[in-house]
Amino acid sequence: MSKLILVSIGPGDLNFMLPAAREALASVDVVIGYRFYLDQIEPIRQAHQKVEVSQLGSEIARAERAVEIAMNGQSVAMVSSGDIGIYAMASPIFDTLMEHNWDGVSPEVVVYPGVSAIQGTAARLGAPLGHDFCTISLSNLLTPWTVIERRLEAGAWGDFVIGFYNPRSQRRDWQLQKAKEILLKHRSAETPVAISRNVTREDEKITLTTLGDLDVTMVDMFSMVLVGNSQTYRLGDHLVTPRGYLYEEDVSDSAANDFGRNAATSS
Amino acid sequence: MSKLILVSIGPGDLNFMLPAAREALASVDVVIGYRFYLDQIEPIRQAHQKVEVSQLGSEIARAERAVEIAMNGQSVAMVSSGDIGIYAMASPIFDTLMEHNWDGVSPEVVVYPGVSAIQGTAARLGAPLGHDFCTISLSNLLTPWTVIERRLEAGAWGDFVIGFYNPRSQRRDWQLQKAKEILLKHRSAETPVAISRNVTREDEKITLTTLGDLDVTMVDMFSMVLVGNSQTYRLGDHLVTPRGYLYEEDVSDSAANDFGRNAATSS
Repeated sequence: MSKLILVSIGPGDLNFMLPAAREALASVDVVIGYRFYLDQIEPIRQAHQKVEVSQLGSEIARAERAVEIAMNGQSVAMVSSGDIGIYAMASPIFDTLMEHNWDGVSPEVVVYPGVSAIQGTAARLGAPLGHDFCTISLSNLLTPWTVIERRLEAGAWGDFVIGFYNPRSQRRDWQLQKAKEILLKHRSAETPVAISRNVTREDEKITLTTLGDLDVTMVDMFSMVLVGNSQTYRLGDHLVTPRGYLYEEDVSDSAANDFGRNAATSS
Repeated sequence: MSKLILVSIGPGDLNFMLPAAREALASVDVVIGYRFYLDQIEPIRQAHQKVEVSQLGSEIARAERAVEIAMNGQSVAMVSSGDIGIYAMASPIFDTLMEHNWDGVSPEVVVYPGVSAIQGTAARLGAPLGHDFCTISLSNLLTPWTVIERRLEAGAWGDFVIGFYNPRSQRRDWQLQKAKEILLKHRSAETPVAISRNVTREDEKITLTTLGDLDVTMVDMFSMVLVGNSQTYRLGDHLVTPRGYLYEEDVSDSAANDFGRNAATSS
């Protein structure tokens, strides 16, 4: 049966990967992905499964190859760390399906979500995502810097908690500093900031600092940078963003009841 | 051993809950939460565990009770659907710990992340979160509407994909319409919109529409509303937000290589 599944591995530790994703992964003929991700799932790979290691470089070629395998009648899993839908391979895969005039039926395509970097980081920090947040990728390889700059202005002005993906690499070494400068126009230098690296892995490291003191040279391509909003506070080694801006005990009964009921869908 | 764990259940289907979270949940003496969440985890609850059902209403009282149990020396799990760190109980718990002058050590506090509503919805839709996104709660019970309105303006102007939490309830029936009007100032009426309800559950329902045609009366407190950015397109029953704004095949080798390497941390 021709099937293409998109599998999220999560932050690294396989106990942070969904059982549904793991079960689906076990069912396919071929597993395809970047070597780093294939290494991560090696302990749970089935002996009979064929593995295709993607080369560095074009993610479009990787998507093409996965779609080609599925269209040739085999079942294939594309794997990605974090959540495959968030800055990862889901978009190139669906772009490729569109170019192949996919009929929505064959191959069957199923996406399995997972814990993205911002969530792994947030869990270690305590509760930094208690209020509205946004994610911004600082990679300007596929997105013009003008678009990214507008997002930075919007995220800062809107007082969102902000998670930076692809914050810095050897080649892209100026974007995070520029982002810091834009945020400082709208947000206090005392705003709590966390740099996390390899969450749930053996060499996990989390560094707490402030927006003013953020040393961008500490950040590499395995890092995620999380910036608090105006209400975020530090509690020892933790960061907390309150659920509201009022947070009064004396919310009226009716309001509290309404909130209680809505909490059923609040996350 | 005094321990307080914060456990994310995910969207509903227990195969979408992390093994790490499930294992931690099995280890505690007491499980506390809103009845709806306790019902969800009933199939995996241990027979010896005491259950405390929270009343509707103040989440602060619920947090106080969990911290009290832990400070009295028992191990306790606070459970929440979705990701407990995203618009859920993590923030009230840490606020409460702060008020009790928590020393960061006793009780030990560990947070287990999970699949939040926007991710469950995104996975069903295909790839709507392929680029920068933000989440906005439309509940103005703990946040002044002026703050929410500013977030709406920022999210719309910044061309973020937007996920609305707590979009509408019987009592809060005007906020989503107002949000729609603000978005329409910045974004085309043709922008794809999805309304999802009870993802991964038996009565799961996803409705695709556009920003201009969005009928807010279809949305209830069990729904999540997801709005595409200017690049998001519909592919049959799926929504796709491209990874970039250029997406050219002819990205230079060096750039493609850099992107390939950075993809290792991109999600």
